[in-house]
Amino acid sequence: MEKNLVNVETQYFELGELVLESGKKIEGVKVAYETYGRLNEDRNNAILIAHAFSGDAHAAGCHDGAEKPGWWDNMIGPGKAFDTDRYFVICSNVLGGCADTTGPSSLNPATGKPYGSDFPPITIGDIVAAQKRLVDSLGIDKLLAVAGGSMGGMQALQWAASFPDKIRSVIPIATTMKHSPQQIAFNYVQRQSIISDPNWNGGNYYNTDKKPNVGLSNARMLGHITYISDQSMDQKFARQRADNNSFQVESYLCYNGDKFTKRFDANSYLYLTEAMDNFDVSESFTKAGATAARFLVISFRSDWLYPSSQSAEITQELRCKGYDVEHIEIESTYGHDAFLLESEWQTKIIRDFLTKVAISTAPCEKSPSLLE
Amino acid sequence: MEKNLVNVETQYFELGELVLESGKKIEGVKVAYETYGRLNEDRNNAILIAHAFSGDAHAAGCHDGAEKPGWWDNMIGPGKAFDTDRYFVICSNVLGGCADTTGPSSLNPATGKPYGSDFPPITIGDIVAAQKRLVDSLGIDKLLAVAGGSMGGMQALQWAASFPDKIRSVIPIATTMKHSPQQIAFNYVQRQSIISDPNWNGGNYYNTDKKPNVGLSNARMLGHITYISDQSMDQKFARQRADNNSFQVESYLCYNGDKFTKRFDANSYLYLTEAMDNFDVSESFTKAGATAARFLVISFRSDWLYPSSQSAEITQELRCKGYDVEHIEIESTYGHDAFLLESEWQTKIIRDFLTKVAISTAPCEKSPSLLE
Repeated sequence: MEKNLVNVETQYFELGELVLESGKKIEGVKVAYETYGRLNEDRNNAILIAHAFSGDAHAAGCHDGAEKPGWWDNMIGPGKAFDTDRYFVICSNVLGGCADTTGPSSLNPATGKPYGSDFPPITIGDIVAAQKRLVDSLGIDKLLAVAGGSMGGMQALQWAASFPDKIRSVIPIATTMKHSPQQIAFNYVQRQSIISDPNWNGGNYYNTDKKPNVGLSNARMLGHITYISDQSMDQKFARQRADNNSFQVESYLCYNGDKFTKRFDANSYLYLTEAMDNFDVSESFTKAGATAARFLVISFRSDWLYPSSQSAEITQELRCKGYDVEHIEIESTYGHDAFLLESEWQTKIIRDFLTKVAISTAPCEKSPSLLE
Repeated sequence: MEKNLVNVETQYFELGELVLESGKKIEGVKVAYETYGRLNEDRNNAILIAHAFSGDAHAAGCHDGAEKPGWWDNMIGPGKAFDTDRYFVICSNVLGGCADTTGPSSLNPATGKPYGSDFPPITIGDIVAAQKRLVDSLGIDKLLAVAGGSMGGMQALQWAASFPDKIRSVIPIATTMKHSPQQIAFNYVQRQSIISDPNWNGGNYYNTDKKPNVGLSNARMLGHITYISDQSMDQKFARQRADNNSFQVESYLCYNGDKFTKRFDANSYLYLTEAMDNFDVSESFTKAGATAARFLVISFRSDWLYPSSQSAEITQELRCKGYDVEHIEIESTYGHDAFLLESEWQTKIIRDFLTKVAISTAPCEKSPSLLE
């Protein structure tokens, strides 16, 4: 029988005041997070998993009574890519999100009402700064790895840029150092869908029964198209019709767009896509020192939203700065969603990489693999 | 000095009743069209140009007082690809359109009010049937060629499927025999943008001052992204900012989305994208006879909306049926819009092809090139 994580629970870190890159402050920040596995005595086996745009802190295991496990359960657990028999895995919901970490739908302590559009603009740097405070609070000085796909990959790269001495390895997956104008354009049209929904109402809709669900659903449907490959859609739907004579792919998008509105906040959609568009670490990496982090860059052949060429750019830039970087392109037909679905190849590659990182501990450190 | 077509004028063909493929009828159909060059005595030098989704009958030359020439003026004129010194070129606005051919914004003779959503659903076959009536009315029995890009290419293929004995050649450019689920999905999301604009009002907005311009603009912006390549956007905008600190690509999309609402009807957007999604001639071609049309299929390397693989499918299907088909993929960075912009290569290829078609006249016919 497969070993699994069971009955995991979300925890909360009261971060307090967070000063943003813009100089603005958010008071009383709370961070939702989960952990899997056990932190070893030397506190050097911790891995931070950064989630993608619509993800949350619940990366693995099952919540009590839930039907489905966390979003990366195929990758995190005993014997899995992020092996919880060896590593202590942390995942937190991002700042600006809508799954229990402080974001635009949270109560503004100054007014007692939800922030809405009064929430200050945030950056991927701010998201990572909140994660750093969480990691500090857990008594971890240096992470064995930071890993994530898509917006999670941006956070991993931001860790390398902001806290190069606090990480031993980085695994950016299906991501980029900066959005291309096409990626910005897709996000812009998605934001326009939301803000042109009259129910968006300038961002103030929390205490009403009119939510900008139509605009949010339209935005998500467009996002959804960009997450999957043409080939994958063709295998799934071809030109088949649904009962009402519409195309099955239309019903599928409509169903998923609608479902999304039940779990995601429209304002978080705006703030997080803005943060992604503004993200740019293409000139943030300093020359690698002796204890510099090692990088495993992963991309997928059919991902046309974050194409392999962007991973090649990450690899080239880091190698120019003297970093130890491996880039692996995985053959997959799933498109961008491959980072969530292609667990078999990712498991092989990531497990080997983490083992290498763990045993290549600097002289004064002990390897976590020796402690088991 | 370059020879140009000057002061062309739009003409109107009173088609009368048109019976649609669905069996429904539209009464009093009017078709806007333009012609360039001169029909020869044998009436065998006529070429029909079919326009793309947002095009119109004004393909070349200048209207009196206008600043800009027609949409394919770089391809149609004296000495150009469609050489008006040799050929008689016709272009008509499509049925269901909004540039003076009958469409949803036209007055319904039964009610005296604009059709709106009472306009019957139409197909690419219906669009071509209206063109056939126009061509008949001009006393032309057989066209030398039907050519067009994108939705225009679909019409060219539909001519080959519906009226194989009435054409001598077909030039489908940057097009497909049928939309993939990804192409359907993009159109679906664009339609959702329009119908979720409260001003769309079920399609009845013509006699009000509330137009669904926000939804129409959002739809167009998404369409626009799919028409251009990532590389082309990157060369044009990179990550440059506009004055208001938004990205230039955002301002560009916004400006063009807004401009589009001044010339296009939201209901036409719905009807024509539906017609494209329903279009499927993948099983419509019969075995080529002795006088079968010749095909020149053109695609562009960076076109990711109508990728070259779809042109390869057209080519394969037609060759299987015994047709003479040439497929040329043009190296271009413009994306789908290349069919409007890459005039140099298209000119060489199309001019040679048309000359070959014109001189390969069947024994009982005279070649138009001998008449000059």
